[in-house]
Amino acid sequence: MKVAPKVTPQVLKGMRDLLPPRMILRDFVISTLVEVFQLYGFEPLETPAIEYAETLEGKFGEEADKLLYMFEDRGGRRVGLRYDLTVPLARVAAMYPELVKPFKRYQISPVWRAEKPQRGRYREFTQCDVDTIGTANMMADAEVITVAYTALRRLGFSRFCLEINNRKALSALASVSGVPDELVGSIYRSIDKLEKIGVDAVRAELWRAGVPAEAVDRLLALVQTPLDRADGLDELRERLATSPSGQEGVDELKQLAGYLDESGVPTENWRIVLSMVRGLEYYTGPIFEGVVDEPRIGSICGGGRYDGLIGMFGSKPIPAVGISVGLERIIDVLEELQLAPPTLRLTVTEALVTVFGPETRGESLRLGQELRAAGIRTEVFLDGERLPNQLRYANRKGIPFVLLLGSDEIARGIVTLRDMATGEQVVCPRDAVASALQARLGGGTG
Amino acid sequence: MKVAPKVTPQVLKGMRDLLPPRMILRDFVISTLVEVFQLYGFEPLETPAIEYAETLEGKFGEEADKLLYMFEDRGGRRVGLRYDLTVPLARVAAMYPELVKPFKRYQISPVWRAEKPQRGRYREFTQCDVDTIGTANMMADAEVITVAYTALRRLGFSRFCLEINNRKALSALASVSGVPDELVGSIYRSIDKLEKIGVDAVRAELWRAGVPAEAVDRLLALVQTPLDRADGLDELRERLATSPSGQEGVDELKQLAGYLDESGVPTENWRIVLSMVRGLEYYTGPIFEGVVDEPRIGSICGGGRYDGLIGMFGSKPIPAVGISVGLERIIDVLEELQLAPPTLRLTVTEALVTVFGPETRGESLRLGQELRAAGIRTEVFLDGERLPNQLRYANRKGIPFVLLLGSDEIARGIVTLRDMATGEQVVCPRDAVASALQARLGGGTG
Repeated sequence: MKVAPKVTPQVLKGMRDLLPPRMILRDFVISTLVEVFQLYGFEPLETPAIEYAETLEGKFGEEADKLLYMFEDRGGRRVGLRYDLTVPLARVAAMYPELVKPFKRYQISPVWRAEKPQRGRYREFTQCDVDTIGTANMMADAEVITVAYTALRRLGFSRFCLEINNRKALSALASVSGVPDELVGSIYRSIDKLEKIGVDAVRAELWRAGVPAEAVDRLLALVQTPLDRADGLDELRERLATSPSGQEGVDELKQLAGYLDESGVPTENWRIVLSMVRGLEYYTGPIFEGVVDEPRIGSICGGGRYDGLIGMFGSKPIPAVGISVGLERIIDVLEELQLAPPTLRLTVTEALVTVFGPETRGESLRLGQELRAAGIRTEVFLDGERLPNQLRYANRKGIPFVLLLGSDEIARGIVTLRDMATGEQVVCPRDAVASALQARLGGGTG
Repeated sequence: MKVAPKVTPQVLKGMRDLLPPRMILRDFVISTLVEVFQLYGFEPLETPAIEYAETLEGKFGEEADKLLYMFEDRGGRRVGLRYDLTVPLARVAAMYPELVKPFKRYQISPVWRAEKPQRGRYREFTQCDVDTIGTANMMADAEVITVAYTALRRLGFSRFCLEINNRKALSALASVSGVPDELVGSIYRSIDKLEKIGVDAVRAELWRAGVPAEAVDRLLALVQTPLDRADGLDELRERLATSPSGQEGVDELKQLAGYLDESGVPTENWRIVLSMVRGLEYYTGPIFEGVVDEPRIGSICGGGRYDGLIGMFGSKPIPAVGISVGLERIIDVLEELQLAPPTLRLTVTEALVTVFGPETRGESLRLGQELRAAGIRTEVFLDGERLPNQLRYANRKGIPFVLLLGSDEIARGIVTLRDMATGEQVVCPRDAVASALQARLGGGTG
């Protein structure tokens, strides 16, 4: 072969290799999410990583250049890597009107962001989204929240809360507080920072934005009032009497609350939080955010209703609602809280069959195939015949069991089974090895 | 929200949306492959889609610009989208010397090629690779072939063959035939076309390349001689007596053949084919290609040993061998041969629970949750209360069962179960619905 010039092996800043131990944890999270998504009838969808620039830019306007990986392809077309999975879904919804509605889909795919990488934030990361397209019914909103609740429970989380708010109610709260109409949009960004920078800093920010001081005080008091669930929404509705859209928002919250109760989502796992905003501008109704209460580690999923987005593709507006689970956050938190199942190991391999020489290798290969046929993830040692090397390999990789098969064992029809954690060795009849291993492996690793 | 200008919804040429029915088939193939890969102890790995340009270019030299999606990122770095999964693996092997060797990994990820798209060939497609890094032992080569055999069998293929050759033997055959040394590399491309363009066209091509006519005849005779397995290799070895490296290649083939037998790969599913070449220049020893014999649809997987590639990263050379399964080809062929399991449906949803009105909706939501708890993939209708719409939805999506739950059913503690294929309706006690559905669904859909 041609010898290429030497190249420094490196990954780009903000991007990562996921080596096997991390991947094993990640695959556990993804398979749990997929199982839950499918239990609710969400269908798999995949879209290309590369989209036309105008598809990606629509959502961002002038900021697009800062946020997106954009380039020209060989045909001179302006293209870019997708920033999220919502815009490609909106494109799909507009492009295939024949899709049966409501169209419920999940997508688990990488997205790319050209922003400066920060701790825990990457330029390439995986989003896990469920969305329902084509119905404005609040049952769809309640369903995606229920899906998030079910997924978080199955992943091992218990002390978490799905915070719920409504953009229509929030805008109306701003209006009735005396925030001038043209500033209603801009209050979102400030309110969103309440927990992070505190009420005084938010107040100052709203003043600077030109919101009258009295309006600021009223608004901050309103959004911070804890909301008693049943009566609280009725009171809120009265307070927004002058805003039909605000009342609509409260009615949506009431319906949502009812459907969550009927779906069995426990009241301790969701609450209405009028100060919760969500960053993205395209939300039009209910918005949601999942937070872990203990320890306080912030948002692990979020979403909302975006009835206007699909209309950007010239088709008629199609209502839509969805929720996105942050895979990297979930994995970080699972690790921090040690919630990952103890059966997950650092390697997928459950057993290593030794090879001692040419005369026993055939038998080792056959034993490997028998164990695989029994569903046991098995390696036959590939690289030499010295026992210490083979034990060291199993040890360094974290393989739990080693099967020793020398000519003596073969002659006697037995296998020596070594538990690598304890060093204990037992002798098994050859035809009982698979069941002995299965018993020791318990629930399997993944 | 801001109204963006209207955008035409479209995908780029050579790229595709994978809608749910195709994704369901695709996920079946991927989960089968992953199960087999893990049974042999291959570990999951993921690498970023974007790599430094110099990492990607090394393999291609001047052709890189034609084949790769390359661009400058916001920091002015020359970067590109990965072309395959082998080069990123080589980078990983060079970057993390601490990885325990042999390092066995699989990766199932999209790759991008800027070439002109053709029928069945896309600019973005998914590769499924298994590779073993860090051993030159032929057991590793035999293992990846065995993995491919096992995967193809589990996917439902039976009449297929894994063709095996060896680059060292092939080069030596060229030498002993009288092909000048400097032309040995270039004969690969011509020989590779034997099946496609026929022996006469290949002969003409070799003449044009400057290979003496006698050498061409000898070479074509040799590579086309069917090889009787045991004796054939011995004869071949004698014929290559003047080439130590050719003899090494034959010895590798003999070892490989022995390990395949010992691993229980049936002799009808593999053969040595001296005219099989594989395109990529970086192979250094055994090469493999899986072909479906009936119908003749060409290659569905391929690979080989590439002991020189990892050395391009300045580290010491690390031997490596791997095989890549073409996901799109496999899916096309599964569809063509109708090998997909009949339990795979067009939708993941197994049952739809109707909603007839506000007074029954709570009960419908509760029934949905009960069925999901029993593992049945269930939708509760999200968009209205008219029965014909709900049946039409189930019908258009291909949902096999609908559960009718009106106030009458609720009062009597029953559910009406409708089989959408036959139109047949049966009445079930409420607490027996899940088991009645499970019995009718049989093995499940996924």
